[in-house]
Amino acid sequence: MKACGLVVEYNPFHNGHVLHAKESREKTGADIVVAVMSGPFLQRGEPAIASKWKRAEMALNGGIDLVIELPYAFATQKAEIFAKGSISLLESLGCDSFCFGSEDGRIEPFITAHRILTDNSAAFDAAIKSYMDAGNSYPSSAAKAYRLINNGDAALDLTKPNNILGKEYVSAALSNGFSIRPYTIQRVAAGYHETKLSKDPIASATGIRKAIHEHQELDPVSSYIPQTTMNALDQYLSNYHAFHDWEMYWTMLKYRILSSSLIELAEIYEIEEGIEHRMKEVAKQSSSFTGFMAALKTKRYTWTRLQRMCVHVLTHTLKEQVIHNDQPTYIRLLGMNGRGQEYLRTVKKGLPLPLIAKLSSYQKQDINMDLRAAQVYALGLSEPYQADLMKREYEAPIIIK
Amino acid sequence: MKACGLVVEYNPFHNGHVLHAKESREKTGADIVVAVMSGPFLQRGEPAIASKWKRAEMALNGGIDLVIELPYAFATQKAEIFAKGSISLLESLGCDSFCFGSEDGRIEPFITAHRILTDNSAAFDAAIKSYMDAGNSYPSSAAKAYRLINNGDAALDLTKPNNILGKEYVSAALSNGFSIRPYTIQRVAAGYHETKLSKDPIASATGIRKAIHEHQELDPVSSYIPQTTMNALDQYLSNYHAFHDWEMYWTMLKYRILSSSLIELAEIYEIEEGIEHRMKEVAKQSSSFTGFMAALKTKRYTWTRLQRMCVHVLTHTLKEQVIHNDQPTYIRLLGMNGRGQEYLRTVKKGLPLPLIAKLSSYQKQDINMDLRAAQVYALGLSEPYQADLMKREYEAPIIIK
Repeated sequence: MKACGLVVEYNPFHNGHVLHAKESREKTGADIVVAVMSGPFLQRGEPAIASKWKRAEMALNGGIDLVIELPYAFATQKAEIFAKGSISLLESLGCDSFCFGSEDGRIEPFITAHRILTDNSAAFDAAIKSYMDAGNSYPSSAAKAYRLINNGDAALDLTKPNNILGKEYVSAALSNGFSIRPYTIQRVAAGYHETKLSKDPIASATGIRKAIHEHQELDPVSSYIPQTTMNALDQYLSNYHAFHDWEMYWTMLKYRILSSSLIELAEIYEIEEGIEHRMKEVAKQSSSFTGFMAALKTKRYTWTRLQRMCVHVLTHTLKEQVIHNDQPTYIRLLGMNGRGQEYLRTVKKGLPLPLIAKLSSYQKQDINMDLRAAQVYALGLSEPYQADLMKREYEAPIIIK
Repeated sequence: MKACGLVVEYNPFHNGHVLHAKESREKTGADIVVAVMSGPFLQRGEPAIASKWKRAEMALNGGIDLVIELPYAFATQKAEIFAKGSISLLESLGCDSFCFGSEDGRIEPFITAHRILTDNSAAFDAAIKSYMDAGNSYPSSAAKAYRLINNGDAALDLTKPNNILGKEYVSAALSNGFSIRPYTIQRVAAGYHETKLSKDPIASATGIRKAIHEHQELDPVSSYIPQTTMNALDQYLSNYHAFHDWEMYWTMLKYRILSSSLIELAEIYEIEEGIEHRMKEVAKQSSSFTGFMAALKTKRYTWTRLQRMCVHVLTHTLKEQVIHNDQPTYIRLLGMNGRGQEYLRTVKKGLPLPLIAKLSSYQKQDINMDLRAAQVYALGLSEPYQADLMKREYEAPIIIK
């Protein structure tokens, strides 16, 4: 059986994701499609709108055969580490290929970009540093630096978010000598950051989330998500009475910031350059997460980077805990259908990493960071929903026939 | 002007407190009555029902002339340290006397007990240890030990909570060579821990709080508190929409326990003998503070001691921060009336400690623990009440003419 891997967040799973799965399957000729999906906290430094279990269920109902979790130590990270963790897990699971959506749509420019940037890595890093010193953000500096290195020709437009991610996926595969083969398909319609909904059945997850949070109901987004996602979200809302957003965690974040010393805050992963001072001052004056972020934001830091810092403060993730996480050390199953189960049976014996189906049978400490993230995520709900969600954490993966 | 000091919590200020102030004034012949009052968190390891500002206002309206704050490092402590901090502050403020309510009602047995226990401190400590090793709680062991040392004659009944506190007040004054003179008056009617309300106009603060929390209104307690307390509590409820109790802080406490490592928990003040393991296990399974405490309780620890541990976890108070706090290093004013102001004018110049009227004009770090406690206490309220309470923290003391 040939498997194609997808790197996803499904926040929530929408029509664009159905298309991505379908086209990836066709393009790579795979028998099954495996998604490596972020858990409770996402790359942009936000809590997922619904639990990873509910999002895995949506995926299985939308054409994915097997869903595994991208551990926290890789999910809430800049593109390079996020990509390394994801592609490494897909390789470990024996996938023949992976396929990502990009603004570009052709795989060659990604491979070329990887080669050029590897051959000129010192010059590239120096250029990035000088753009950043001039006050540019990291993504913008990296795009400018690539154009500079590539003699003014940006064969791959590295200002586009999906191109940036894609370049990192390709680099992760090539620089680690993985056998997994990269493919890309062109993203249609909605841009990654597009927040307005249109008449097209494809909308960005950002736009969909925004509409859900604004209206506090699902009707306005019904044309952009499969009926199965609609049902799943509907069920989540009636079970737990809330979708997750940052405001749900604001009191906890404020509490953590204000009750920790500056020295303790400085020990948190990604907290640097003295931003802990600013965090404390700003938190004191803020009465919502939105207000806090608006006051915290400076040109020096992207919104995403600041939000990721906030996630690490919230989950109390320390520098010393992340620094050793080079590649994932386990494969955690979230859900599968019959084909997914069949695939697992064929690869199970040769897996280089332990496969975690049930938490209670896994005794190693390396999963503690994920458990803590799941616990903090659950604390955003009121009781008894908190307890219910944590109970789910210890059960077997979701199986959909 | 002669001042008499009272050591109080006023949680809330009730008819028994009016009597205590009146009788203390008469017994000591004082011109003014000064109360040293705990701030947001109390000796029994609980958040106060209303802010220290509201409680100071009740006191001023009920016959107290001057209210100062007992710093957190002394307020949320076992009797010995609580007493040392309180009496030391009253001495610093130049009080001629202090007067406490006790079950005994005579001052001599307290002075005798102090003398006997000082002369036999090694034997007393050894006896306490052996009773505790046999599974008794600290208070019960101390009472048994005193009876043993005193040849079977418990001239002072040290199983009674107000006698225990009183003995510590007297010891604090005598063993530090303070010039402040101890007095006691007999407590009438309601016992310290009495939770049922009677027809008598004096009820314990515990009973009053219980009735308020149960009924979520003030009518059932109107016969036990002055009209001014009634009005103040009523105003608090309409301003902030809540009285404070532990459940209000449960999510924050659970969050702190579950997101901290065992090593971090062990650094918290009063956490010892590995109880951090038990705390983590029990917190995971608990959905309320009441349930948590019930599951955490063992014969080894008193309820009060466990609750105090929880307060220190909540406020993130570390062993290294408290260990150096030998005696209070500042006098913080919460409120006063005209007579209180007049008294302050007469003693102001000779005070051995800085007098803090406005927080913004005090730059030393020693008040940080109090500020953090006030901040955490405020976080129990929703916005904008949180911000309102913190604003009050930075304003000048309450003045009632």
